[in-house]
Amino acid sequence: MYMSKLVGKTLKKIDDEFYLSSQELLIKSGMFRNIDSGIFTVLPLGVKVLDKLVDFLIKRIENLGFQRIYLSNDSEFVKNMSLSIRNEIKSYKELPVFLYDVQTLKRDKVRIKEGLFGAKEYKELRGCSFYKEDDDLSNKCSEIIENYKKMFKEIGLEMLSLSDYNPKNSGDISYSFVVKADWGDKVIYKCKDCDYTSLEEVASFNIDENASVQEAEIEEIYTPDIKTIKELENFLGIKKEDLAKTLLVKIEDEVVAVVLRGDRELNLYKLSKVLKVSVHDIKMAEDEDIKDLNTVTGFVGPVGLKGVKIIADREIYKGGLFIAGANKKDYHIKNVVAGRDFKADIVADVSYVKEEDRCPICGGSFVREYAVKIGGFYDLGKINEIKNFNYKDSSGKTREIVGIYHYIDIYKLLSVVIEKHHDEDGIIWPIKIAPYHIIVSILSIKDEEKVQLGEKIYEELKGANFDVILDDRNERAGVKFKDADLLGIPVRIVIGKKASEKIVEYKLRWESEKEELKVHEALGKTMKLLKREEII
Amino acid sequence: MYMSKLVGKTLKKIDDEFYLSSQELLIKSGMFRNIDSGIFTVLPLGVKVLDKLVDFLIKRIENLGFQRIYLSNDSEFVKNMSLSIRNEIKSYKELPVFLYDVQTLKRDKVRIKEGLFGAKEYKELRGCSFYKEDDDLSNKCSEIIENYKKMFKEIGLEMLSLSDYNPKNSGDISYSFVVKADWGDKVIYKCKDCDYTSLEEVASFNIDENASVQEAEIEEIYTPDIKTIKELENFLGIKKEDLAKTLLVKIEDEVVAVVLRGDRELNLYKLSKVLKVSVHDIKMAEDEDIKDLNTVTGFVGPVGLKGVKIIADREIYKGGLFIAGANKKDYHIKNVVAGRDFKADIVADVSYVKEEDRCPICGGSFVREYAVKIGGFYDLGKINEIKNFNYKDSSGKTREIVGIYHYIDIYKLLSVVIEKHHDEDGIIWPIKIAPYHIIVSILSIKDEEKVQLGEKIYEELKGANFDVILDDRNERAGVKFKDADLLGIPVRIVIGKKASEKIVEYKLRWESEKEELKVHEALGKTMKLLKREEII
Repeated sequence: MYMSKLVGKTLKKIDDEFYLSSQELLIKSGMFRNIDSGIFTVLPLGVKVLDKLVDFLIKRIENLGFQRIYLSNDSEFVKNMSLSIRNEIKSYKELPVFLYDVQTLKRDKVRIKEGLFGAKEYKELRGCSFYKEDDDLSNKCSEIIENYKKMFKEIGLEMLSLSDYNPKNSGDISYSFVVKADWGDKVIYKCKDCDYTSLEEVASFNIDENASVQEAEIEEIYTPDIKTIKELENFLGIKKEDLAKTLLVKIEDEVVAVVLRGDRELNLYKLSKVLKVSVHDIKMAEDEDIKDLNTVTGFVGPVGLKGVKIIADREIYKGGLFIAGANKKDYHIKNVVAGRDFKADIVADVSYVKEEDRCPICGGSFVREYAVKIGGFYDLGKINEIKNFNYKDSSGKTREIVGIYHYIDIYKLLSVVIEKHHDEDGIIWPIKIAPYHIIVSILSIKDEEKVQLGEKIYEELKGANFDVILDDRNERAGVKFKDADLLGIPVRIVIGKKASEKIVEYKLRWESEKEELKVHEALGKTMKLLKREEII
Repeated sequence: MYMSKLVGKTLKKIDDEFYLSSQELLIKSGMFRNIDSGIFTVLPLGVKVLDKLVDFLIKRIENLGFQRIYLSNDSEFVKNMSLSIRNEIKSYKELPVFLYDVQTLKRDKVRIKEGLFGAKEYKELRGCSFYKEDDDLSNKCSEIIENYKKMFKEIGLEMLSLSDYNPKNSGDISYSFVVKADWGDKVIYKCKDCDYTSLEEVASFNIDENASVQEAEIEEIYTPDIKTIKELENFLGIKKEDLAKTLLVKIEDEVVAVVLRGDRELNLYKLSKVLKVSVHDIKMAEDEDIKDLNTVTGFVGPVGLKGVKIIADREIYKGGLFIAGANKKDYHIKNVVAGRDFKADIVADVSYVKEEDRCPICGGSFVREYAVKIGGFYDLGKINEIKNFNYKDSSGKTREIVGIYHYIDIYKLLSVVIEKHHDEDGIIWPIKIAPYHIIVSILSIKDEEKVQLGEKIYEELKGANFDVILDDRNERAGVKFKDADLLGIPVRIVIGKKASEKIVEYKLRWESEKEELKVHEALGKTMKLLKREEII
């Protein structure tokens, strides 16, 4: 590519304000243009970048056996995918099947300051693998995930696959692909002493199992007009931990009471797993929903509560005396002992972790970190989006197909790569996804000798199947150097003063030194570097 | 690709009814699946076909200097395109600029029986080129169009670029890319004696300029309750050609009268050009629109008609006596002479051609043929979709950028290629867009020697960078031959009885004879054929 022809200027500054430097760099480098709130056009250099990234992902995923399909954007992914191949799978011999597509999707709510991150349109690589009903999926998942980790490493990202909740609650397997980043919106709890690392949503923690067992009978206390935990704390002069708060939630038409310690927050993700429903199906109960229960809003408690299932957090059940609502206006009950004064239908961990909690593995203390989620991976279980998605097993019996879904958010991935690979001058592309491997810069395009040498080197490298861009613009050397840095091309070859001696300047984007080399040495060094990275 | 792993079965028959064999073949061959009315999934073999076709188009269009961008699907194409590059063009030195994208678009109205042709989603390659205000566009257009013709020829299509109306009426240049086909929905008029070929919408024709000049004064005639031309013909015992019918049309708020011979149909495309408006802006006038005119519905005529512009078809103005409406209930006027009894504001050709008309070039007679439109090409003129789409000319003056737009309907193109290249057994791919160049068929996969030879040939051809598919399925020879024909792969190499002698069977899809060749001969012949087609 001749840079003088490339549509898309580099910019010194931009009007838009983004909170990530990657978003600025995408625009300053002339790769993307923000033409309206959250609406982007990808200019030719950006197309090259995106195509490189997508090709990189595709090659690796196809090596794992995934085959590409083009799905219509017109209906729900899993349904569409299953309908598309229902008739292609008849027998157990045809399983497993691995399919993927790359799709442009629309976001409901644009987040302008996030640039491409929150753009109206986003691109996803979405994979689905289908298995026999009794296949051991956890092994198969590990294999795919390990390969994804390797793949991300190739483009300079330390990807973590952390257990996460399964949004459909359709199986035990669910991972998020995250990369640590201070600006990320995902919270991670990491043990300071052992390897335990978990997303906040599903992080477990240690509780002291040996609570002192005190003997005391329950006793009603008059708490007029006190409805919040804060008010109760002040009124009784107690700590939040001494309270057992009871929350009423609704799943479809059923109301469920959840009892947890006053200082804890209900974790809906953990609760959804306990209740075996999708997290999206859990709502807080409204006054209307509880009008037939023998209780009063603000004074709900587990003792004597009738007609609902009671889920108690394990911290409540480990022992101790609690203060709880009395199900009667202006009254609470003290000295409540779980198991003695009320029976829970289920005891489980349904609380959010807190920073002062302890590692569930070794009891070490936690450090709270941030990460960005680039993709996810989860068990679809049996596909119930369509009917008769099945196969015949070796004995001829009809069995159901099970599936695993995963996705990668490509724009996010691109942004994170830049976020992790740039300096104050611009992008520093990992070689495997660099839009061009080499930039050949002719310092004075008025000098015929320089131009000829530059074009010769350009043609030679192109002939060797590298991606080369020739800076043949009528610009000053300073501008050319600045732009080369901004664009982030790994190898820079400058045709300068010593062109007549066949000496050029060779520099790698991530190194500060440059060297003067004979042309053939510079070419040799370039090819050696790129071959090491398996570019050809 | 190992065929045993390929997701997508060949089918003997299909449930859907399409009126084109290409649509059936796309499904029978396992390339596409119709998962709901007008909604298709492209299975892996179809992805390969589409990718080949798109890559083929992209390579050629990039050779013409077009650079790819990705446009958001969220707003109108020309507006979006112009906004995206407005800030990239400042000076005349940066023009012309050539850009394209490949986009999936949605059709408002699905046409189920047409298969992919009328599917809910369709794919277009859309190009825009931008020029200086005073560039001679017709030359530049011819160049692009000539290249398109060559490109289509490479995939076995005789593409015609026929003048067409400009849908925006934004310039004189407008072409449709069509391929002749009996089942096409475009009508073409072709002269039997010369090269004149035209789309029905814009076809011109010869009229007899020497009409006899008869002298007769106009005279009112009583035509009670006669409102249609048919009734008038019967009542007066005359021919349609003797009538001058007057149609009232509306453009925005203005009513215009169009006078044409009773046997002619008003051609809105021609009229739009005469009136310099978009064809979509012309409506038939309603009673409400003409209530202030001195006329009566059913008896409208040009004589004495006031307050409207009058457009007369040239056939009316060439001379002769006509019968026309008298603008008064139950009356017509006879012996009307255009120019004498009424003056037209504009005289032009605004009639549709008829089969009995004569060639405008040589006076020869016409033959009416059908074609299918694969794409279009037209002058956008000055881009008024956005403000300030301009550049500075060499004297520093601000000038407006002008543009040319063109598009190719990719699914239609794919369908037409198959329509033109198939026989009763299946598809016959033009080599340049064949999903695989070679199918290597192992006749018995139980025979280790055959399998080894097949895999060796497969690896060798793949190593030479050809696209090869290995039929390693556990199927009978008959099934394998049938499927190879259905899929339409150009070269078939069969590993059969003489495998132990290193003899294979070599056959081209479009030839009926097959030959027995030594392995190295078969490979040599294959490579020679593919190199001739510039495959590597």
